[in-house]
Amino acid sequence: MELLEERIQKDGIIRKGNVLKVDSFINHQMDIPLIDEMAKEWKRLFAGKPINKVLTIEASGIGIAALVAREFGVPLVFAKKSMSINLDSNNYCTKVQSFTHNRIYDVIVSQKFLSKDDHVLIIDAFLANGCALLGLLDLVSLAGATVEGIGIAVEKGFQNGGELIRAKGYQLESLAIVDSMDAETGEIIFRH
Amino acid sequence: MELLEERIQKDGIIRKGNVLKVDSFINHQMDIPLIDEMAKEWKRLFAGKPINKVLTIEASGIGIAALVAREFGVPLVFAKKSMSINLDSNNYCTKVQSFTHNRIYDVIVSQKFLSKDDHVLIIDAFLANGCALLGLLDLVSLAGATVEGIGIAVEKGFQNGGELIRAKGYQLESLAIVDSMDAETGEIIFRH
Repeated sequence: MELLEERIQKDGIIRKGNVLKVDSFINHQMDIPLIDEMAKEWKRLFAGKPINKVLTIEASGIGIAALVAREFGVPLVFAKKSMSINLDSNNYCTKVQSFTHNRIYDVIVSQKFLSKDDHVLIIDAFLANGCALLGLLDLVSLAGATVEGIGIAVEKGFQNGGELIRAKGYQLESLAIVDSMDAETGEIIFRH
Repeated sequence: MELLEERIQKDGIIRKGNVLKVDSFINHQMDIPLIDEMAKEWKRLFAGKPINKVLTIEASGIGIAALVAREFGVPLVFAKKSMSINLDSNNYCTKVQSFTHNRIYDVIVSQKFLSKDDHVLIIDAFLANGCALLGLLDLVSLAGATVEGIGIAVEKGFQNGGELIRAKGYQLESLAIVDSMDAETGEIIFRH
């Protein structure tokens, strides 16, 4: 998606260790009109699919997914990290490794909000090694629900998450795929 | 707000220990049209204020705040819990006690996204003892920004957070204030 690629080129910050910071418009400050355009693009890409629910994982994905759910006219469910006393014990549960925070989370979704009748669009801000996404796919599978598609804002094409997920046959639509980036020159090469 | 009170009465679940679960429409599954109506109500309640940014704290608040930011036509900034390697060290930082998770978090916001020129509307899903909200107010104060108002979805009127915040002179608009609830009968009394 040209609009997003231009924005990453303009405001993304590359740090050593293949870190791409997009926190001025996606995951700390959110540029709402940009996200709304991204939601419209996913609406176009997943047209005709019987999507009745958007699923994401807290925290950075929630803002994007809320605007996507609004665009699709369906509820949003966000999977939660770790057990809270406010949640029922009747949950689907899986484990997700976070490299950013260097720990393993329990990720849960209530059985009340995901069932075999659901046709789910999974939305997340990032895809790198695919750990969070595999966790969400696991939750959908435990619920017996159907994955109609996966929408990612920024995919790191040089990590193997995208390949892994596409090999499973899912329609994965990343609006920007970064194939390489150079912390010295600031150059970013996108896949087209 | 009548629409929200009716929904809490219909789908809220009261548990012992004054726990009110609204996870079927606010903080696990989100009813997007309902949240959109709430955003419109805050737009009306804060009309004429020079709001240029919405501020919330991850995680449950983000979805609501994204739709509010959309309604106001301004960016959303969400404060983050705990330090991530993807964040700069140039942050405003405060500490927040979470009773739900029984721990103390570092809560941070980048100095890039909150400054003395900002006129902030703070949005969160819940207000009980006010710890999270006091943390956000602390971050705004550290940045030298101005709080134009505070919007809360559900306030527990029998805890002291609301009183504490109103005593400081802020325009605090809770769309539903629960004054009492009864886990046995399911009765909920709202403040008007």
